[in-house]
Amino acid sequence: METIVAAARLRSFVAEAFERCGVPAADAAIAADVLVTSDLRGIESHGVARLHHYISLLRQGLIAAQTQVRMVREMPTALSLDAGSGLGLIAGHQAMQLCIARAREYGSAAVAVHGSTHYGIAGYYAMMALPHDMIGVAMTNASPNVVPFGGLQPMLGTNPLAYAIPCGEEPAIVVDMSTSGVSYGKIELALRAGTLIPPGWAIDGSGQVLTDPVAVSKDRRLLPLGGVEEGVGYKGFGLAMVVEALCHALAGAAMSMQITAVQARGARPNNIGHFFAAYRIDAFRDVDAFKADMDHLVRALRACPPAPGVERVLLPGEKEHLMVQERTRRGVPLHEQVMTSLRTIAAELGIMPL
Amino acid sequence: METIVAAARLRSFVAEAFERCGVPAADAAIAADVLVTSDLRGIESHGVARLHHYISLLRQGLIAAQTQVRMVREMPTALSLDAGSGLGLIAGHQAMQLCIARAREYGSAAVAVHGSTHYGIAGYYAMMALPHDMIGVAMTNASPNVVPFGGLQPMLGTNPLAYAIPCGEEPAIVVDMSTSGVSYGKIELALRAGTLIPPGWAIDGSGQVLTDPVAVSKDRRLLPLGGVEEGVGYKGFGLAMVVEALCHALAGAAMSMQITAVQARGARPNNIGHFFAAYRIDAFRDVDAFKADMDHLVRALRACPPAPGVERVLLPGEKEHLMVQERTRRGVPLHEQVMTSLRTIAAELGIMPL
Repeated sequence: METIVAAARLRSFVAEAFERCGVPAADAAIAADVLVTSDLRGIESHGVARLHHYISLLRQGLIAAQTQVRMVREMPTALSLDAGSGLGLIAGHQAMQLCIARAREYGSAAVAVHGSTHYGIAGYYAMMALPHDMIGVAMTNASPNVVPFGGLQPMLGTNPLAYAIPCGEEPAIVVDMSTSGVSYGKIELALRAGTLIPPGWAIDGSGQVLTDPVAVSKDRRLLPLGGVEEGVGYKGFGLAMVVEALCHALAGAAMSMQITAVQARGARPNNIGHFFAAYRIDAFRDVDAFKADMDHLVRALRACPPAPGVERVLLPGEKEHLMVQERTRRGVPLHEQVMTSLRTIAAELGIMPL
Repeated sequence: METIVAAARLRSFVAEAFERCGVPAADAAIAADVLVTSDLRGIESHGVARLHHYISLLRQGLIAAQTQVRMVREMPTALSLDAGSGLGLIAGHQAMQLCIARAREYGSAAVAVHGSTHYGIAGYYAMMALPHDMIGVAMTNASPNVVPFGGLQPMLGTNPLAYAIPCGEEPAIVVDMSTSGVSYGKIELALRAGTLIPPGWAIDGSGQVLTDPVAVSKDRRLLPLGGVEEGVGYKGFGLAMVVEALCHALAGAAMSMQITAVQARGARPNNIGHFFAAYRIDAFRDVDAFKADMDHLVRALRACPPAPGVERVLLPGEKEHLMVQERTRRGVPLHEQVMTSLRTIAAELGIMPL
C-alpha cells in the first residue's frame, strides 16, 4: 500500500511540522527540502520516513530549534564551525553556503563542522555547488554500524561521501555513497520485503557472512565497501577512515564510535561532524570547455556496449535524476508505515494531515 | 630469484639513469625517490620495474627531460598547470609543492595539472603534505583498463585516489587505491605466480567473469570497485568518474579513453591529468588535538577483535609503513626480471650496474 503525495504538498507539510517545533520558517523550508529531495531521488531511507526522529529530538530539546553555525577558527579557505547541536540539515546548508562563498572568492575552499546532528543525504549539500558552476563535496560521520576490514566490532559509521559535478546538457554527475558496501537502508528494505541479502554485506559476531537481514538488524555489523576480500575490502575501510579523520579529528566532532543512532531514545546531542569542499570550475578552466568535456565523457560512457541483462550504462546519479523527473511529475509514493508516522506527527503537532 | 639492493644504492642508480637522459640532477633525485618509495612500500608494480618505460619515453623524446610546470590559470587557492609533456613524477612534485604553499597561506588549496605523463604512485604526492601538518589528496587518470558499471568496454583508467592524514605517535593514515576492484598490478602478480584470480576482478568481452589472469591480460576489462553487484559496483564507477572529472575535464587533460598505456610503443605524449588538494590542519583545529584524536582513533581500531584467521586489524597504510621500515633496514628485494631490465638500462646508458 502506497499513497502518492505531490512533492510541493509534502514539502509544505514537513516545513509546517518543523515550524511547530520552533524551527524558524526559512530554516523549516530548507530542512523540508533536504528530506523531500531525498524521497524525490528515491533514497526513501533518508527522507520523510525519518521526520519523526527529527521531530522527537527537537521536542525533547536534544536538537536546538534555532540553528546558527558559529565560526570557531578561520582562514580564508578553511572554516571550522560549531553547529551548537542544531539541526544538521540547517548546519549543513549554512556550512556549504559559506564554503561556496569562499570558493567563489579564492577558487576553492573547505569547511568542517562539529556539534551537529544527522543531516540527511550528503548529496544534497554537494549538489548545492552545481548552480554556482562549482564542484561540491560533502561527507559526514555517523553512528557505528561498520566493522574495520579484518575486524568484528562495528566501529565506523557508514560515513558517506558525496561529489556533485556539473555537466552541460547532460544531468550532473552525482556520487552519493556510503563507504560501507551498502547503507543500513538496504538492510531495512530487505527486512520489509522479507528477502535475503547477498553475501558480502554483513557479518555476525564471529565473522560469519550473513544473508538474513533479521540477523543483521540485531547487531549491525556491515562490511566496508569491497567486503572481506584481501586487497579489496581495505579500500572501503580506507575511505571510511578518510571521512572519519575529516569529520571527527579535523572538525573536532565525536568519533563514530561515540555517536548514538538517530533511532536511539533519550540520546544526548550527538556532536556529529561534517566536511565540505567546493571547487570553482572557472578558476581552473573555461566553464563551457569543462561542460563540453563532461557531456562528451557522459555520452561516450552511455554508449558503452552493455553487459548481458543490462539495458544501458547509467551514469552516477542518472537513476536518481530520472526518479526526480518522474516523482516531480507524478508525486512521491509513501509507504503505509511512513504515512502512519506522518499522521501521528500531524496529530501530535496539530497540523493538517496529508 | 631475488636480489636485495640497499634503498640508497637503488635511489642513486635510478637518479643516475634519469640524469643520463638529460633530466636535471635535482629532478632526477626526486624521480628516483618516487620510484624507490613505491618499492619500499611494497608497491613493486609502480616502482623501479617501470624505470625502463620512463627511460624509453625520455630517449624517444616523448617525455621532455626538463619538466617545468607552467601556470595557465590562477586564483589564490585554485591553480591550473600545464606540465608540458614533462615527467609526471616531477610535475606531480612541483604541483603538490605549490598546493602546499597555497594551503599554508589560505588554509586549503587545490591544483589541477594537464599535459603530464605517468606519475607513479598517487600516495607519494599525498604524503608530501604530512611533514607540513597538512592532509594531502592526489588523483590521476590513466589508460583505459576499467569498464563502467554495467558496461563491457574498458573506458576508464584505474584512476587512483590517495589521501594522507598525519597522526601523532602512530604512523600516518595513507589510503592509496585504484577505484577499480584491483589495479592491473594484481593481475600481473597472478600471471607471474601462475595462480587464478578471484571472481569479481575482471570480465571478458561478453560480460563473463574471468578467473584466468592470462585471459584478463589479453584485453583488459577490470571491474570497478564493488564488482558487478547491483547497488555496490556503481560506487567504484562513481569514484572513477570523480577522478576522471577532476583530472580530465577540470584539468583540461585527455580523458582516460584517449590515453595510451605506458607500455605501448611509439606512444604520443599522453596528456595525462592530475588533481591535488591540501588542507592545513591548524586552520581548522589545534594540531596537537587533531593528532591526539587520530592516535586515539587508530588505537581503538587496532584493538578491534579480529575476524577468524586475521592476526589484527591493520590501519590504512600500516602494512606499507611496516614494509618501509623493513626494507629500509634490510634492502629492497628485486625480482630477477626487474634486475635484468635494470642491467639493460645500465648497459644502454653506460652507467655502473647494481
